[in-house]
Amino acid sequence: MSRSSSPHVLIVGSVALDSVRTPAGAVEEALGGAAVYSSIAASFFAPVRLVGVIGRDFPAEHLNFLRSRSIDLQGLQVEEGETFRWSGFYDFDINQAHTLATHLNVFERFRPRIPEAYRSSRYVFLANIDPELQLEVLDQVTAPKLTLCDTMNFWLESKRDAFIEVLRRVDVAFMNDAEARQLCETPSLVRAARRIMEWGPTTVIIKKGEHGAVLFTEGTHFSAPSYPLVEVRDPTGAGDTFEGGFIGYIASTDDVSEPNLRRAVVYGSTLASFNVEDFSLERMRRLTHDEIQERYREFQRIAFF
Amino acid sequence: MSRSSSPHVLIVGSVALDSVRTPAGAVEEALGGAAVYSSIAASFFAPVRLVGVIGRDFPAEHLNFLRSRSIDLQGLQVEEGETFRWSGFYDFDINQAHTLATHLNVFERFRPRIPEAYRSSRYVFLANIDPELQLEVLDQVTAPKLTLCDTMNFWLESKRDAFIEVLRRVDVAFMNDAEARQLCETPSLVRAARRIMEWGPTTVIIKKGEHGAVLFTEGTHFSAPSYPLVEVRDPTGAGDTFEGGFIGYIASTDDVSEPNLRRAVVYGSTLASFNVEDFSLERMRRLTHDEIQERYREFQRIAFF
Repeated sequence: MSRSSSPHVLIVGSVALDSVRTPAGAVEEALGGAAVYSSIAASFFAPVRLVGVIGRDFPAEHLNFLRSRSIDLQGLQVEEGETFRWSGFYDFDINQAHTLATHLNVFERFRPRIPEAYRSSRYVFLANIDPELQLEVLDQVTAPKLTLCDTMNFWLESKRDAFIEVLRRVDVAFMNDAEARQLCETPSLVRAARRIMEWGPTTVIIKKGEHGAVLFTEGTHFSAPSYPLVEVRDPTGAGDTFEGGFIGYIASTDDVSEPNLRRAVVYGSTLASFNVEDFSLERMRRLTHDEIQERYREFQRIAFF
Repeated sequence: MSRSSSPHVLIVGSVALDSVRTPAGAVEEALGGAAVYSSIAASFFAPVRLVGVIGRDFPAEHLNFLRSRSIDLQGLQVEEGETFRWSGFYDFDINQAHTLATHLNVFERFRPRIPEAYRSSRYVFLANIDPELQLEVLDQVTAPKLTLCDTMNFWLESKRDAFIEVLRRVDVAFMNDAEARQLCETPSLVRAARRIMEWGPTTVIIKKGEHGAVLFTEGTHFSAPSYPLVEVRDPTGAGDTFEGGFIGYIASTDDVSEPNLRRAVVYGSTLASFNVEDFSLERMRRLTHDEIQERYREFQRIAFF
């Protein structure tokens, strides 16, 4: 896994300041946002180009942290106004986020502009944003080897047609289990995945939180193990971290074969299992490559029979 | 897997007539009950001795079916009155049973009497019944190699102390994820499993429905894959079938090593994945050993990375 010589990963999505309370504690205006979580995770494997928007109030220390991780910020727009803020809490059921407030601020008028130097990126990840903006990104990239998208239930209700158009144009769709069932109106994840693949993607990855993840490709199925989490201090960004780890690993190997997709799912799960151990990006700041490899081997041990 | 020469499995639990409605259809007064589901599943691997109670109204055809599967019915008490009946339905969320009526009938005064010939059984499964009755069974068996118990949320509330006494005396505890969290008052399944093991069992198996199962032993963890179910026609008895398949496989190999427990979890999952494909025990009636082996290999393929 040599980061510097790998193909680049282009990531487009939100950059935020999150205030989060869980049974384990709380943070105020901590670094967050789907593009941040996925970029940091991907940066353990490959160089990242981030496209998003921040306000003038965005702390310089966060920019320095991102730059220190081989994340190119040329595509990060700085606008007059305040950065996107989200606040919420988690109760006993740590899988269920309760939103207290969403202030889109500068993110409300975000239009992704892909810098010229980014347009030939081989790996393109459309994190959870308005599907119409995801389409604008796809219009601007010139030679992707693999395009991937995430979404959320809000867009499945309000912009279903645009999201299905995104599905027509991407290779890999990430969704959590509830979103897949909602989009496809079936309780069966297998049927939902097949339906999604009919729209376009050759690969569908269903995220199941603590229950792991499932990878569907044409005719194959991979059930990634769930990791035995002792304590989830803050689940915020777990899905984004999973996706970033997946894409980073794929880019670092430049291999989109099905066996390598399986390994990438487990690397994504590995990164996510660390991320929930602390608030915001704190665990990622001190995570080492040795820890990643050791936990990947642990995933192998818990899945073997 | 030679059935006739294997050690015997003793199973104690309910025998019922179930009326079930799901989005896929309905049955009236069909064969059911935890001891029936688990006995049929176990009988694919080892000879079974069933202890339970039925009323005079229990159809002879069901007795014939059980006998045809190497299930010894000497311990099945026949009492004046009607057989235990349960009726319920499942909606879109196929994991959630809604009870319409429970008529305990002769099951209300059930006291397990273990026939002399059964007392030396090597493998003893206490299916979901009153924990005080589970203790009475343990008092009557003389030389078990492995004792296993199941339970339900009702007993965790109403007979918690008796159930913890059962845990002190068994080797393997089966529980679904919600029950484990409820019993141990923690959202962490890892912590719940450790707490349960402090009470006594050396092995804890958490059932997660469509998300598979997790096996905890001292210092090890096995995350069994979830099977890609296309359609769940009737989930009734899936957990009991899982447990029966597990125990039957263990008995057939007479091997309680950790690697063999893992294989048994996958055989249990295999049997359960078939059982939900049809109502009542219908899928079990036509299930073949070749189908079991083929699906076990499929479980291997979907878990490999």
